[in-house]
Amino acid sequence: MKIDGEHLQSIWYEPETDEVCIIDQTKLPHQIEILRLQSLDDACEAISSMQVRGAPLIGVTAAYGIYLTLRDDPKNLNSAVNALANTRPTAVNLQWALQRTQEYLHGLDFNALPGKALEAAQLMEKEDIAVCEAIGEHGLGLLQELWGDIGETKDRLNILTHCNAGALATVDWGTALSVIYKAHEAGIPLHVWVDETRPRNQGASLTCWELSQQRIPNTLIVDNAGGHLMQTDKVDICVVGSDRTTLGGDVCNKIGTYLKALAAYHNNIPFYAALPVSTIDFSIVDGMESILIEERDGKEVSHISGVTAAGNIESVRIAPNNTTVSNYGFDITPAKFVTGIITEKGVFEANEGSLSTLL
Amino acid sequence: MKIDGEHLQSIWYEPETDEVCIIDQTKLPHQIEILRLQSLDDACEAISSMQVRGAPLIGVTAAYGIYLTLRDDPKNLNSAVNALANTRPTAVNLQWALQRTQEYLHGLDFNALPGKALEAAQLMEKEDIAVCEAIGEHGLGLLQELWGDIGETKDRLNILTHCNAGALATVDWGTALSVIYKAHEAGIPLHVWVDETRPRNQGASLTCWELSQQRIPNTLIVDNAGGHLMQTDKVDICVVGSDRTTLGGDVCNKIGTYLKALAAYHNNIPFYAALPVSTIDFSIVDGMESILIEERDGKEVSHISGVTAAGNIESVRIAPNNTTVSNYGFDITPAKFVTGIITEKGVFEANEGSLSTLL
Repeated sequence: MKIDGEHLQSIWYEPETDEVCIIDQTKLPHQIEILRLQSLDDACEAISSMQVRGAPLIGVTAAYGIYLTLRDDPKNLNSAVNALANTRPTAVNLQWALQRTQEYLHGLDFNALPGKALEAAQLMEKEDIAVCEAIGEHGLGLLQELWGDIGETKDRLNILTHCNAGALATVDWGTALSVIYKAHEAGIPLHVWVDETRPRNQGASLTCWELSQQRIPNTLIVDNAGGHLMQTDKVDICVVGSDRTTLGGDVCNKIGTYLKALAAYHNNIPFYAALPVSTIDFSIVDGMESILIEERDGKEVSHISGVTAAGNIESVRIAPNNTTVSNYGFDITPAKFVTGIITEKGVFEANEGSLSTLL
Repeated sequence: MKIDGEHLQSIWYEPETDEVCIIDQTKLPHQIEILRLQSLDDACEAISSMQVRGAPLIGVTAAYGIYLTLRDDPKNLNSAVNALANTRPTAVNLQWALQRTQEYLHGLDFNALPGKALEAAQLMEKEDIAVCEAIGEHGLGLLQELWGDIGETKDRLNILTHCNAGALATVDWGTALSVIYKAHEAGIPLHVWVDETRPRNQGASLTCWELSQQRIPNTLIVDNAGGHLMQTDKVDICVVGSDRTTLGGDVCNKIGTYLKALAAYHNNIPFYAALPVSTIDFSIVDGMESILIEERDGKEVSHISGVTAAGNIESVRIAPNNTTVSNYGFDITPAKFVTGIITEKGVFEANEGSLSTLL
């Protein structure tokens, strides 16, 4: 992605200093701060405090966390895997990334482990970029077809997205936003409605920022607004990411995704999830039955962080003191409401028959 | 309603000082501040800046605004009506209250106008209290029936509400919350899920506060969460207010109401709107066709006000500087998704056949 006109990834390895660098996403959009991860603790903290977030980026960060552990002590592979696995329970490709790294390191001597772990993480980083770019290319086909249908009567293609499924959620390109970037490059006139995505406002703070950095027209809305926009013909397609997708096509994504899918369904608006195949959980079919939804700290709801008129980052409480708060992080959009699944291998229907061809 | 254990209304007239008093709702829940309205400008400002909000309370405030105008100069009735009518375009019973006041004053001598205008406002105040209490009583019947059906298998009745349709939105009792207060008084064990209701957070700042003041268990959630709660059997009924309801049963209420109605519909959860008959617009049937949705300042979305750790009320910006923002204030829930309409005259179906019996 471009940041202030320069190309930057969300995570990268610096060989000169032997450090893993990330953009601290808790500081965006107010400050662009690069953090240098030097230990397992740094990697765990980066994931659990959401300095990095987004399923693909979490996976790559975890792989680098294994490297940082083994560099310090090659005997600590198992404890590192456990520590990293517990940072975010819902993200299925965190487990996938850890398992893949373990397989990569299987049967090696202790002294070979650090070098091989770095190789594994760098490979995963490169693969993620290629996967995300391919997601964008497959999604582009859909948008071109849609624009072919409606372009004569509209001055722009209106896309609604939720949360941040952008370059900041991956190493680069993103998933849902990769589709948008590819369509923008291909010359389709676009406008993106960005759900602010409470409680953590990743839409407001990350997606608006990321889209504006790539010079793509976008408008911030509250999460409540999408239904009205869809009722009044202001949305042509919804494209979201997914943290975990079942073999049956149920999409587990940021809380609130389900409500937008319902509105799309009732207003005949196509609703797509864009995701790497690594986030598909082929072991489960029914998301409502099988996925445990992560509950997070209530302070994420009762307190909001932003920048004051004086330019300081400050957290304010919006509810009465001691208000009881519930904070589920994700919801499940049943496959019935999902028009299709955009992956690096092509676009699939949200059902077992279609997705099982990926096995 | 009780505030710190004392009975208080959202608006009242003080004969000793000849002033109209309101609770400044923009300061809640962090400060309880009583404002004294002394002029038409004060009344217009109170409505447009949302120091008072909620369709019924806006109507009574407008009636008092007419009194304050005529007390100062009995010739200014028409300009006062125009100024007040333009403060909030969507609220149909603002127009109703103004029209009713004008009828009340029709044909009177200038010197009789101030006294009669005060009488009209006080009458409207008292009627609003009676109407809201009757709404609660009719809604109570519904909740008793529902609790009769599910009480054996559940330890509490879970109600989801959106925005603030409470005593703070009326003179006293509220509309949706009046139903809850009456059920609480009748001994039904209740728990209320409160949508925070972005952008202005009336759920977080007003409804949680108001319910807690009446000692009713409540939990704050983001607007994104209701779908998940309904999917997982954590909501037994939705009860919301309505700013304007059509003869066909379409409900125009705070933005985001529609999304909750869709989720209720798909999860077989009853969805009711509670409202005074004065907010029904008998002149229109189709809300999508006939109701213009108010657009408000984008700063309501990009900036959030709350209290800092140091105890100061501060506004913080959550989006990048200069982000484009759209801010529709209301949406329309088509009658198809509304189980019923609770009014002071009884519970009606959301269709023309049923609602036209009120004519």
